[in-house]
Amino acid sequence: MPDPVPDPTDTPRTRTAEEETARATEALTATATQLRERGQAAGGTAAEVLDALAMMAEDPSLATDVQQRIEKGATAEFAIFAAMDAFRELLAGMGGYLGERAGDLGDVARRAIARLQGLPAPGVPESEHPFILVARDLAPADTATLDLDHVLALVTTEGGPTSHTAILAREKGITAIVGALQAAELNDGDLVLVDAENGTIELDPPQERIDLAVQRTATLQAIRAASSGPGHLADGHAVPLLANIGSPESAREAAARGAEGVGLFRTEVLFLGAEKAPSVEEQAATYREVFANFPRQKVVVRVLDAGADKPLAFLTDAGEENPALGRRGLRALAAHEEVLRDQLTALAQAAEGGEAEVQVMAPMVSTAQEARYFRDLAHELGIRVAGVMVEVPSCAIMADHVVPNADFVSIGTNDLTQYVFAADRLLGSVAGFQNPWHPAVLRLIQQVGVAGAEHGVPVGICGEAAADPLLAVVLVGLGATTLSMSSTSIADVRAEIAQYTLDEARALAAIAVAADSAEAARDAVAAAADELDPVEAP
Amino acid sequence: MPDPVPDPTDTPRTRTAEEETARATEALTATATQLRERGQAAGGTAAEVLDALAMMAEDPSLATDVQQRIEKGATAEFAIFAAMDAFRELLAGMGGYLGERAGDLGDVARRAIARLQGLPAPGVPESEHPFILVARDLAPADTATLDLDHVLALVTTEGGPTSHTAILAREKGITAIVGALQAAELNDGDLVLVDAENGTIELDPPQERIDLAVQRTATLQAIRAASSGPGHLADGHAVPLLANIGSPESAREAAARGAEGVGLFRTEVLFLGAEKAPSVEEQAATYREVFANFPRQKVVVRVLDAGADKPLAFLTDAGEENPALGRRGLRALAAHEEVLRDQLTALAQAAEGGEAEVQVMAPMVSTAQEARYFRDLAHELGIRVAGVMVEVPSCAIMADHVVPNADFVSIGTNDLTQYVFAADRLLGSVAGFQNPWHPAVLRLIQQVGVAGAEHGVPVGICGEAAADPLLAVVLVGLGATTLSMSSTSIADVRAEIAQYTLDEARALAAIAVAADSAEAARDAVAAAADELDPVEAP
Repeated sequence: MPDPVPDPTDTPRTRTAEEETARATEALTATATQLRERGQAAGGTAAEVLDALAMMAEDPSLATDVQQRIEKGATAEFAIFAAMDAFRELLAGMGGYLGERAGDLGDVARRAIARLQGLPAPGVPESEHPFILVARDLAPADTATLDLDHVLALVTTEGGPTSHTAILAREKGITAIVGALQAAELNDGDLVLVDAENGTIELDPPQERIDLAVQRTATLQAIRAASSGPGHLADGHAVPLLANIGSPESAREAAARGAEGVGLFRTEVLFLGAEKAPSVEEQAATYREVFANFPRQKVVVRVLDAGADKPLAFLTDAGEENPALGRRGLRALAAHEEVLRDQLTALAQAAEGGEAEVQVMAPMVSTAQEARYFRDLAHELGIRVAGVMVEVPSCAIMADHVVPNADFVSIGTNDLTQYVFAADRLLGSVAGFQNPWHPAVLRLIQQVGVAGAEHGVPVGICGEAAADPLLAVVLVGLGATTLSMSSTSIADVRAEIAQYTLDEARALAAIAVAADSAEAARDAVAAAADELDPVEAP
Repeated sequence: MPDPVPDPTDTPRTRTAEEETARATEALTATATQLRERGQAAGGTAAEVLDALAMMAEDPSLATDVQQRIEKGATAEFAIFAAMDAFRELLAGMGGYLGERAGDLGDVARRAIARLQGLPAPGVPESEHPFILVARDLAPADTATLDLDHVLALVTTEGGPTSHTAILAREKGITAIVGALQAAELNDGDLVLVDAENGTIELDPPQERIDLAVQRTATLQAIRAASSGPGHLADGHAVPLLANIGSPESAREAAARGAEGVGLFRTEVLFLGAEKAPSVEEQAATYREVFANFPRQKVVVRVLDAGADKPLAFLTDAGEENPALGRRGLRALAAHEEVLRDQLTALAQAAEGGEAEVQVMAPMVSTAQEARYFRDLAHELGIRVAGVMVEVPSCAIMADHVVPNADFVSIGTNDLTQYVFAADRLLGSVAGFQNPWHPAVLRLIQQVGVAGAEHGVPVGICGEAAADPLLAVVLVGLGATTLSMSSTSIADVRAEIAQYTLDEARALAAIAVAADSAEAARDAVAAAADELDPVEAP
């Protein structure tokens, strides 16, 4: 996807400084408006990201810098280009700032400059026939607004499996591979076979491979279509399949797609961008709207997980050098207990009189003492079932002490994997570590599973790992009692787990934890599963 | 420690713009020179930190901003103050930048302004009688150049046990407590008892407590003075006590203090601030100088651990959002293998013909495959003994697969603790998690100890945990075969471990891993140890 907006040069201008300033102001304001509108159309996570970009376009210190450059003789185009660039360089030169945000500045500048020059805004190319979109990375705005009738699959050369692009693609059910370095070699017009399940890209596949892929897709679609109702293993062992949601809209979608409830309701969207926390009444109204979709079903609400990539001015500290290792999640809430108390109170009010079985859980719990603190507070405020997310390694290692202090636990495999490998899950250069198939991760999950079984405490999984059908089987074998995922993945997982008995799942799990790498674990499990389930064979 | 330099105000000036600019330039240059000189006098880590501050004072974009403000009518004082402040605000406003570096900007500004106003540079107050220094935090420059004849102890209200202040204090053998919030209540002239071993501060202690403390200090000093020679348990079981060093000077000190070799030679100091890596010959010369201090003794060299708080332009990526979870340590070296090959070649050359037993180890190893890669490369380049640091949780969890791929392992408890709790060890607000007494950390160490014993592979400890005498006993009980620490701590640890047999150490270790918190572990072990060793009783 070539960049359609060339960098402007410092050429002499024909307009007055006033005229150029007016042009620059109009372009930046219009860019901000456009980004906001696009965000509102897309909704959810995309809306948040685009709002942040719009704010960059309207930054007053940027406007001042642009105006000064125009006064010194620059065109509006060059002033915007140079001001954004200076901003970005300043940050890069200081040594430690978020390179990804710096990249966003470039995106905003290109949009404003395109507008000044009457060019279309940069984005996804148009095409009359369906195509596979290959890009370095996709702006979240572009992923969120992709035309699904024309884009067959999405391949990026950057980003990890838990990057925003990957998460949004999964939410929309797009076949996608991210961080595929070899895709940089592809040319426009190449015939390519994309196998997202195995993460492979095949250039100029022979006809027999194409036939096989078409046939396999049809088989899987048939199995998926035939599968419905509650999740269960081949021996009838029930494994409730729940949805991860973030808003009333995604709650409605999840219910429509047959989720048996909600395993992870992320509540950040109510708080992001707010100067202060919304009132108890405002919160309760939104929660009621979500709960109404799940009568007599479980809805697990994660209390506010601020910090790291989701900073909140009234709760978290700016200026942390490693925000993923900072005062985030329950740590931030415990330091501002009034915010936590209000949220729990709002949840208790919304649960009352409704039919959903509301449960709450705390993010970033590291110790048994934190688990106890949260459960006691939730009980005090009228919520009967309160558990913890297991995503910090210490929480899993101490599972024998944490589990007795929780009504349930839910394992967040994304962050758990990030911390187990000390590798930022949003950073491309270490994305290779972000693989929940690794036995280091699976062994910790097993420790939690064992503690859960011993104490009769349910163990859920709510990370992206649960959306990988074969891995879902392994997770059940390790002791997971429920699986929660993007609702688009439920049908696939339902179909896959129905192929195995609990004993078989346990046997596959034992194979996985004995391996010495993620690849070895997946290969060994896939080979063993093939013998049990011929559909798995490619 | 009140701030002696008041913030300048925007008052009218009496000098011309040229005069003010000259004053500002002189003040910034002189501040830079002063910082560099002070750094060179202190040496080691302090030199690096002060060099970085000097570079801030000489930043050309800062100079431009100062000049522009002077042209608009500001005094030199106010221009420097406002320019630094704008710089800092810009960063803070962007949301994610290193708050601690922003604080350093303020320190540089205060020094330059003090110079302009003829005030003494901010720093540690002078006193004629010995005193306990209480501060919010201490600039590394101040810690490094403390007058030890007058400062009896150092107490800071911020910073964690592995902050630069704490590490420098330990290197200099200063009694210090960091992150002691309650110390903010103390007033000048208060009589205070500081117990660094137990981390307590007692205001107005009764005479009997003072007598007890004096007596206990004398007893400990007597035990320490009586202990010398190789480290061993009460039953004669040898536990070599090695030193952590970072330069030829600290190597000489360590040898003088009776270290039985080096367990951790940090090689970053050769590389920091360099545009590119020093040549093989330059490196070999420095390594020879270090090795010469340890004839027929072990010297374990850690290859370059760049990244995180030690960025290197030619090796690591600026702009990582969470550098502690970034491409650091072996990850960066594997991506620039020529740097690693050169360093291993230089080490092999320096080892040849010398008498030290040179071993190498790799930082930030996460998998068995990385361990094998490093050992194979070191062997290929002529170094016979090559191991890995265990500091990423996955490396400990997979110890059964990692250990067979290493000639030895060495556990870095500082980073291991940081990652196990997903809590930045340099961040004050989560400093409470940075406690290697926590069973979550000890259980991982135990897993490594078990794997080491099974495969006959030595297990060292080279984090700060080994410098805590009672914890050192527990670590031996968990399977550590050597302990490495700041050489100032060796005498205390030698005296303590000599009080226990290996069976007793194992019994204490079992008590520690069964506890449910760091405090519970320490208390239970201390109580059990008291029954064995009456000197431990306070």
